[in-house]
Amino acid sequence: KRARDYGIEIGVLRTGKLNAITDVAGVKVGQVTFHQADGVHTGVTAILPHDKNIFQNKIPASIHIGNGFGKLAGYSQVEELGNIETPIVLTNTLSVPTASAAIIDYTFQSPENKDVRSVNPIVGETNDGGLNDIRRRFITKEHVLEALKKAQTGPVEEGNVGAGAGTVCFGFKGGIGTSSRILPKSKGGYTVGVLVQSNFGGVLQVNGVPVGIELKKHKFSKIDEAYKDDGSCMIVVLTDAPLSAKNLKRLAARAMLGLGRTGGMAANGSGDYVIAASTAEDLRIAHNSESMYETFKVLRNNDLDLLFEAVIEATEEAIINSLFAAETLTGFENTKVEALPIDKTIEILKKYNRIK
Amino acid sequence: KRARDYGIEIGVLRTGKLNAITDVAGVKVGQVTFHQADGVHTGVTAILPHDKNIFQNKIPASIHIGNGFGKLAGYSQVEELGNIETPIVLTNTLSVPTASAAIIDYTFQSPENKDVRSVNPIVGETNDGGLNDIRRRFITKEHVLEALKKAQTGPVEEGNVGAGAGTVCFGFKGGIGTSSRILPKSKGGYTVGVLVQSNFGGVLQVNGVPVGIELKKHKFSKIDEAYKDDGSCMIVVLTDAPLSAKNLKRLAARAMLGLGRTGGMAANGSGDYVIAASTAEDLRIAHNSESMYETFKVLRNNDLDLLFEAVIEATEEAIINSLFAAETLTGFENTKVEALPIDKTIEILKKYNRIK
Amino acid sequence: KRARDYGIEIGVLRTGKLNAITDVAGVKVGQVTFHQADGVHTGVTAILPHDKNIFQNKIPASIHIGNGFGKLAGYSQVEELGNIETPIVLTNTLSVPTASAAIIDYTFQSPENKDVRSVNPIVGETNDGGLNDIRRRFITKEHVLEALKKAQTGPVEEGNVGAGAGTVCFGFKGGIGTSSRILPKSKGGYTVGVLVQSNFGGVLQVNGVPVGIELKKHKFSKIDEAYKDDGSCMIVVLTDAPLSAKNLKRLAARAMLGLGRTGGMAANGSGDYVIAASTAEDLRIAHNSESMYETFKVLRNNDLDLLFEAVIEATEEAIINSLFAAETLTGFENTKVEALPIDKTIEILKKYNRIK
Amino acid sequence: KRARDYGIEIGVLRTGKLNAITDVAGVKVGQVTFHQADGVHTGVTAILPHDKNIFQNKIPASIHIGNGFGKLAGYSQVEELGNIETPIVLTNTLSVPTASAAIIDYTFQSPENKDVRSVNPIVGETNDGGLNDIRRRFITKEHVLEALKKAQTGPVEEGNVGAGAGTVCFGFKGGIGTSSRILPKSKGGYTVGVLVQSNFGGVLQVNGVPVGIELKKHKFSKIDEAYKDDGSCMIVVLTDAPLSAKNLKRLAARAMLGLGRTGGMAANGSGDYVIAASTAEDLRIAHNSESMYETFKVLRNNDLDLLFEAVIEATEEAIINSLFAAETLTGFENTKVEALPIDKTIEILKKYNRIK
Repeated sequence: KRARDYGIEIGVLRTGKLNAITDVAGVKVGQVTFHQADGVHTGVTAILPHDKNIFQNKIPASIHIGNGFGKLAGYSQVEELGNIETPIVLTNTLSVPTASAAIIDYTFQSPENKDVRSVNPIVGETNDGGLNDIRRRFITKEHVLEALKKAQTGPVEEGNVGAGAGTVCFGFKGGIGTSSRILPKSKGGYTVGVLVQSNFGGVLQVNGVPVGIELKKHKFSKIDEAYKDDGSCMIVVLTDAPLSAKNLKRLAARAMLGLGRTGGMAANGSGDYVIAASTAEDLRIAHNSESMYETFKVLRNNDLDLLFEAVIEATEEAIINSLFAAETLTGFENTKVEALPIDKTIEILKKYNRIK
Repeated sequence: KRARDYGIEIGVLRTGKLNAITDVAGVKVGQVTFHQADGVHTGVTAILPHDKNIFQNKIPASIHIGNGFGKLAGYSQVEELGNIETPIVLTNTLSVPTASAAIIDYTFQSPENKDVRSVNPIVGETNDGGLNDIRRRFITKEHVLEALKKAQTGPVEEGNVGAGAGTVCFGFKGGIGTSSRILPKSKGGYTVGVLVQSNFGGVLQVNGVPVGIELKKHKFSKIDEAYKDDGSCMIVVLTDAPLSAKNLKRLAARAMLGLGRTGGMAANGSGDYVIAASTAEDLRIAHNSESMYETFKVLRNNDLDLLFEAVIEATEEAIINSLFAAETLTGFENTKVEALPIDKTIEILKKYNRIK
Repeated sequence: KRARDYGIEIGVLRTGKLNAITDVAGVKVGQVTFHQADGVHTGVTAILPHDKNIFQNKIPASIHIGNGFGKLAGYSQVEELGNIETPIVLTNTLSVPTASAAIIDYTFQSPENKDVRSVNPIVGETNDGGLNDIRRRFITKEHVLEALKKAQTGPVEEGNVGAGAGTVCFGFKGGIGTSSRILPKSKGGYTVGVLVQSNFGGVLQVNGVPVGIELKKHKFSKIDEAYKDDGSCMIVVLTDAPLSAKNLKRLAARAMLGLGRTGGMAANGSGDYVIAASTAEDLRIAHNSESMYETFKVLRNNDLDLLFEAVIEATEEAIINSLFAAETLTGFENTKVEALPIDKTIEILKKYNRIK
Repeated sequence: KRARDYGIEIGVLRTGKLNAITDVAGVKVGQVTFHQADGVHTGVTAILPHDKNIFQNKIPASIHIGNGFGKLAGYSQVEELGNIETPIVLTNTLSVPTASAAIIDYTFQSPENKDVRSVNPIVGETNDGGLNDIRRRFITKEHVLEALKKAQTGPVEEGNVGAGAGTVCFGFKGGIGTSSRILPKSKGGYTVGVLVQSNFGGVLQVNGVPVGIELKKHKFSKIDEAYKDDGSCMIVVLTDAPLSAKNLKRLAARAMLGLGRTGGMAANGSGDYVIAASTAEDLRIAHNSESMYETFKVLRNNDLDLLFEAVIEATEEAIINSLFAAETLTGFENTKVEALPIDKTIEILKKYNRIK
């Protein structure tokens, strides 16, 4: 059961049908997951924004850096040109090179791309080294290509899967989470979908309720001891709203407010990145074009606020969903990380009268 | 009574003695306030980081832009050089030029500064044009100089005072608010103080409790209508922790997470700026020096997380304090903005079991 | 005579008819200049990008910061929203507040703007305190309004005029300079116009010829002495090419390469800012609109290189023009700054075979 | 023979003994080069800033993005934390993942690093796909490790070597180039070293002389045709001057002015990155430390100008050196790129009286 199934209603906007990033039409997610007895607990999550050749049909995009202690690949070209030209792949920190190489392979596989000699892979990561034997660098190019191949529309698996297989969030088992929001028809009826790889710390709040404090388990609960290094949070935001790269940057920045509402605090050691892109068909950017010009019909600055709210709410809920779906895991070197105790959490939410 | 006096305890760190920006040793705040029958409801809030000649004894500083729809003066020089050389003044949007000119006067008044021919005034603003006859530009240089002169240590007046005289926050009367946090001795015992000028919108949460939804008054409560343009939030963060300008930038960025926790969403029309500076005596930067070098003993990257948490908590509480202190005001053209109904808010907090 | 009249041909692209920023259709420049016996040598240069109400018809724009030691007003809002809504005014460092206030007045004068309560004035500056009694802050709002009123199409006066009345460049008298470039018809036939307020240092090169070294007068000619603090360079780039704010940012960045080619080095003390905007009629941004959308036909990323080259060449030539037009001035406290010795410079250029 | 051996003296500061990045004490460069009959013309250039374990002894650093159309790895962490923790490796565009993986291997090889689970590899690239069969991705991890192993102090090979094996610059064969500058004793006597991988376009100037125009070979010589996509320029700046990460950012930005002086224009397709780092021993940042604090003695803002000038001059000369050392190459698919015709270039320089 997901958070909302327990009666936890985050925010004021309604969710999409699946309450997932795949509510954005055409978006596909593919995941490969490894849980092995020898300490491998990692994986790959691949996100395809549309069905066409992405290199030939780039999409407007931007990346916001909440805290840059991370190894995300692809940042500067996205920021310079305002678009992405590959799928988005998430994995663990030390597998970024492998995933990048695999995305180049993936791009070269298409006959249409036979003359392509430059590709900007977008790879996000968090460090699952607490539960996964990360130095072994288990992930291969084939794993990444498999995740890309398996990508499909429909519900998205959450928790200890894909790039979230071995992550830790607020001291509990983290993982993949997703959520979405729909704008009212009068405001365009657009969908905003968010997918997170949660691996960060702070003082957990669930819909405003101080669960971390109640459970006496949070980043600062033993303040005089050295607190543990935190991981990071990767946040992917997709929308069918027609937005310029410039305004996608502003959209991406709002995701950090959603992370803040869960009690996240963007610790020094955290690599918090938000990748935002528009899937609007009319905004596709042809790799080659006979025209010097391109024409964009985009939302005005004045009409962004509901999208901003949607990103904040969906990010908050995606993080909470990742915690609700994750399961207790005993990983590398017998490190055990408990799942968020759902029963106790629901009790706490009831105590605070926050369950419908 | 302030929020904490009602039993509202935000966060996990303890506050300073005054729970105010003036808990940071040496910091002074001065305010002038105008409430006139002819529609003038505005003012000036001046913050002095230390007692010496600030131009001759600059302090490390940085400015984070949460959303740049605003007219803050001084940004680029602070970012290039990593310091501020004047007091920080807050006022209304259209009075930024006047306040900037006044800060130049203020700097020139000192005989020590008699050869100074370049000054970088730091002036923040929000737009109080909903309650104040802002086009009249009532504020004069004398008002600003008076605020600077009146600046003192000790408790800080909150609510409809100074630069917060005419501001609106979450649809209720906003204003000036302040709060502070103290780090444990083992972590340096540093103080972080925050002062806000609250004038923005969203869906109000008080310590995680959905007050805006319960009161049926928030930015998206009538979603099919055009929602009103929001104002902005100015956030000033001072600390005696020894931080480089680079890490003050990171500290400043965290304040936005505190704003997010109150339900703020950094709307398109919002000018959300965070000015962070260190008052640590050893980090003063002499305007003139015989040495080519300067020596800084600063906190390592690894030791910032408690400061980050402190900024988030103090920002959240400063905003809530601004709402608790503000009073219903009928302003320009008889526009009336109600104060946050404290009784009802307390009731709601009790309903959600969030009052100690 | 301007540089080109002496046979100095900078770059490979052709200039516009006036070789001035006013080659961009509709652009107007107005200047007021003060040279007084009591040490006042300063002024105002105002640039109007088009003839309509600019607040109601904003234009895409971006500001690049080459080195941020300066007091330019308006940066963050331009960067957040991607447009400017006022004329661009240049003046001296300490008159930025006055000029900002004047632009608010100017905007409020229009009946169409009667409900406007927020204006983002764009004011650039350099420090003319070497020749001008800058602490006196001679410039008034009326002076600025006069410059705006006097603005006209046609040739632009260069040298010791307007905001360049008292500036110093490469140790010689600097000032206002301008230049333009025209793209070939096959590439759109667009015009790029540049206007500079030159007040910076380095090792002067004229079209690649080491004039500063030959004249034994440059920033590092007496290397063991303390070298003098430099001023700054304001660069305004206007074009009728249809460019997004994002690509105007990239265009603006190239102006610094043109400054580099004159021997400029963006010294610590320099405030080097480039304001770039598109005057393309189809890209005007209505302040109010009944539509949620706006449609832009803009140049593709792939078709920017000639515009980049145009900006570099026109910036280089505008700086050289400012030096050729400026005249020896004895200013405040009898400080005398010689003009670039044109005869000797031409001789040097001939020695290096660089005169056609 | 290098440019200076022909009497070409760029700038006003003197060079180091080797006129190379290795004039900075302790800096080592290692290169592997592949020129094969089957179209492989690529390689690796590795730069070690000091002799110790770099991960355990990080150094202050910053990266400036001149134009971000590139795939450089490591940007965001350097900018967030202000340091680098690995050697710097340059290679071709599609081999960035391989080089990143190799740097992780390299870091893991050290027993001291046995607990390290996160590494931020710094890999720069330009696209040598015009002469090299780049899609083949010939470079292996072993090649990169070999370059790291071969790294040594002393003279640096220039031209068609290492990461410059297959690059093209101003339409001529480009490659690796290096240069250095020494500050006068009275200003600290610091050394600034620059190494470039030149692969970009524009209108070549050699020490201000319009060689590209004279040779009728430059980016815009056939303006009505589509001009070719340009490659990029990687610039590495090392210095023993004690600089904060913040001021290394400013230092890095100046390298673009040096590129501008060669006639470079940072084309749309160019990935122009400048990595600047300080090798000053006192500024090493321990990976682990028992203290919460670190103490830095760094140069004041006011004392940076000679370093800025040094970077500009050394960058200009390094690019020219890359062109002088490169040799005509017939590469992949029989594409032939001529070397800069040195005899004609010297003639042109003589015609312009620019040879001592």
